[in-house]
Amino acid sequence: MRELPIHIRLDAGCGKTLYEQIYEYIREEIRKGSLLQGERLPSARFLSDYLQVSRTTVDMAYGQLVAEGYLTAKPKRGYFVGDAKDLFNTGIESLEEKCESTEVKVRPAWRYDFSPTAIDMSRFPYATWKKITKNILVDARSDMFALGEPQGDIELRRTICRYLHGSRGVNCDPEQIIVGAGNDFLLLLLEKILGRHVHVAMENPTYIRAYRIFRSFAYPISLIPMDERGICVEKLTKSGAQLAYVMPSHQYPTGISMPIGRRMELLQWAAEVQDRYLIEDDYDSEFRYKGKPLPSLQASDRQGRVIYIGTFSKAIAPAIRVSYMVLPYSLLERYRRECSFFSSTVSRIDQTILNEFIRDGYFERYLNKMRKLYRTKHDLLLDELKGFERYFSISGENAGLHILLADKNGRSEEELERRALEADVKVYGMEAFRMEEIQTKMAGQKVPGMTATMILGYGGLSPEQIREGVQILRKVWC
Amino acid sequence: MRELPIHIRLDAGCGKTLYEQIYEYIREEIRKGSLLQGERLPSARFLSDYLQVSRTTVDMAYGQLVAEGYLTAKPKRGYFVGDAKDLFNTGIESLEEKCESTEVKVRPAWRYDFSPTAIDMSRFPYATWKKITKNILVDARSDMFALGEPQGDIELRRTICRYLHGSRGVNCDPEQIIVGAGNDFLLLLLEKILGRHVHVAMENPTYIRAYRIFRSFAYPISLIPMDERGICVEKLTKSGAQLAYVMPSHQYPTGISMPIGRRMELLQWAAEVQDRYLIEDDYDSEFRYKGKPLPSLQASDRQGRVIYIGTFSKAIAPAIRVSYMVLPYSLLERYRRECSFFSSTVSRIDQTILNEFIRDGYFERYLNKMRKLYRTKHDLLLDELKGFERYFSISGENAGLHILLADKNGRSEEELERRALEADVKVYGMEAFRMEEIQTKMAGQKVPGMTATMILGYGGLSPEQIREGVQILRKVWC
Repeated sequence: MRELPIHIRLDAGCGKTLYEQIYEYIREEIRKGSLLQGERLPSARFLSDYLQVSRTTVDMAYGQLVAEGYLTAKPKRGYFVGDAKDLFNTGIESLEEKCESTEVKVRPAWRYDFSPTAIDMSRFPYATWKKITKNILVDARSDMFALGEPQGDIELRRTICRYLHGSRGVNCDPEQIIVGAGNDFLLLLLEKILGRHVHVAMENPTYIRAYRIFRSFAYPISLIPMDERGICVEKLTKSGAQLAYVMPSHQYPTGISMPIGRRMELLQWAAEVQDRYLIEDDYDSEFRYKGKPLPSLQASDRQGRVIYIGTFSKAIAPAIRVSYMVLPYSLLERYRRECSFFSSTVSRIDQTILNEFIRDGYFERYLNKMRKLYRTKHDLLLDELKGFERYFSISGENAGLHILLADKNGRSEEELERRALEADVKVYGMEAFRMEEIQTKMAGQKVPGMTATMILGYGGLSPEQIREGVQILRKVWC
Repeated sequence: MRELPIHIRLDAGCGKTLYEQIYEYIREEIRKGSLLQGERLPSARFLSDYLQVSRTTVDMAYGQLVAEGYLTAKPKRGYFVGDAKDLFNTGIESLEEKCESTEVKVRPAWRYDFSPTAIDMSRFPYATWKKITKNILVDARSDMFALGEPQGDIELRRTICRYLHGSRGVNCDPEQIIVGAGNDFLLLLLEKILGRHVHVAMENPTYIRAYRIFRSFAYPISLIPMDERGICVEKLTKSGAQLAYVMPSHQYPTGISMPIGRRMELLQWAAEVQDRYLIEDDYDSEFRYKGKPLPSLQASDRQGRVIYIGTFSKAIAPAIRVSYMVLPYSLLERYRRECSFFSSTVSRIDQTILNEFIRDGYFERYLNKMRKLYRTKHDLLLDELKGFERYFSISGENAGLHILLADKNGRSEEELERRALEADVKVYGMEAFRMEEIQTKMAGQKVPGMTATMILGYGGLSPEQIREGVQILRKVWC
């Protein structure tokens, strides 16, 4: 260590504080080049002892030098002279890449990945999106850069309201809609509306992210078994839950579409007791291939018990961080009273782009195109799977972007997954979607759902990849 | 009510379900024009009785017709024939404005509004923002439309890391940064990291939104009095709090800058006991007019006890819903273990625009311009307030976008506010920032801070408005 600080001559009578004198001395040494980049300075403790000043004085001088870029502080190593280019007044752009990330993400990639969450972005109307964005920014006034309504801009909410009414039969006013940056945020907000200790019931298996979110709320969670028509309402009633999270259009991951009878039972369950609610996650209702699309559960709700949640991340692009929640009036009141101070999480610019994209018909055209594209892939996949019926029962094929293969030969999911992986094909076992509690509870107990069931998502694969991937699966599984 | 449904002839043997027969009959009647737009249909109950089918069957048929736009359901009024243009397959854009909002927001506007939260957007480099956006969209590949890392894109986190280091002395790695859509979202996330029942201390008076957020967490809140150097650490210690939310650079609303000694006491408080943390909200640290800018509290934190939160909403534009939180390593670990499944709330496109805006030096240039602009307004306001010293003590003038006037003549805030309002000038009393609990506790007790104190924000006012507004205040107050 150099003996530099020895030369600091502190002068109590010069009109400058001790802190300023130390600060200015070191700064000058660096500017003159007497202290070179990378040199280590004495520790603050050493310098305060040496100069007989308080530790606080030295800390403050060092802190200021760090703030201005003259020094760099390295945790547990001390203070070093920074790069001259780091000085803030030369502009941020010239700063050295000293903040290199220590994160290294290694994600194994498979040749064929039947991920149930992947989507196809190849037909996305980038040009249209760019055009809308450009036009909006050309006309942008400062109010576009202002903070919008906590619930979302009224124009976008009106558009979403019309869209949901037209495509999903959702009955609501724009004032019931809350726009937010993703479903996770909306659920965080919903927790604040519903309050604590809410006993929630979920289908089993279910969407793991939602399960984790409810667990992070410390909500008691009951996992309710499903039959071929969806969640068992009798068991739901017995659970004592006050809230149920369901996906009636196309349950994830089972692919079950809840028929109208079961829906009515579910709504009846909610209406029976004060303050019971259903969360309807209508995550991929846009894609349906067989049979008439059922309207949403919310469309049949006459008692105001359904909280409807949907997203544009799946139907447009994951980068579009816009989801919406339709609150029944009873909860809307609570939201307004207790939670409406939470600021909007979506910028007005993004809301305006999305609004025009839907309002001007681009969204509908894109959806129609994607429905066709996904249907082609869906039909191809089912076609390629011919012959698999001897070994698997195929289900969940009416909607969404994945189908299920249930093994008929008593093999384990682990075995099926491993065999596929060895041939560079990634498939997903249903087991991962069943929750640990129920697994423990059911250990050793033979239930129909426990048959090894593999999930094959096709949204992100090209027709060739589907063909080749299934050929490999045929070799290793059949 | 027309007798329409009488003509439905249900045929159990035709191969179609009853639901389908009802659905098709009504659809045909609408298509043929036998049922006209706006006509009311019989209630589901009436129709099910009449046709001797279950209520569920009718509900399902009506629900389907609503979903497809043939019918409109009006809560408590029944089903009506929709506008033919409403049919979904003619495109969403042609839908009627039937979802008109019932919300009417009436916000009184004042001629001169000394709002402490308003900012000046007149110098915002719209052209630059547009240019960056355009270039990004031109180069956009599909990965830009993909979902990014939960913590935020690494490029943006690196840029924020460099910026915070250079301008605020914040010591961190990019991996410690979490990017989120606004401070409110980041605090919601922080709740999940810190857990429940965390006893939080806040300065009194404080930022009301943060207070409400902690209350929505059901955190026990202690409100700690401040002296002229900021929060009283002795009282903080006595409160038994485990977490303290502070604004050391420029406390809101008092404008106090915490000197280094008090900062060290505060860090000492945090270091004393395991699992104590400080939240440093550095909300408007960019604007400082007098004295050397103090580095952030985080810059002096050697024990990893400071959670640093900042936002671009104030320094760039409120529409930019991008905030950042720097977690100490101990909490980062907890975040990764328990909360990293929460999806990112900011789109990759927005992250990329912001990254380039900062990285390429535009942000720094804009900040410099705004610092000058706000300094001019600040100096003008202080100049115009000459003579007010006889009636008020002026404080908080070193930084931020507002100053404080404390009345010397025993008048109430209510009186001062009312007099100003009568002359069409909106000013803000400090009382509104004190929390009810402490108000109750202190009722009847004379404490120094309870002097009527008016907040005058000048960020959103033009020089003329400042001049004219103060002239009016002089008339009504002095």
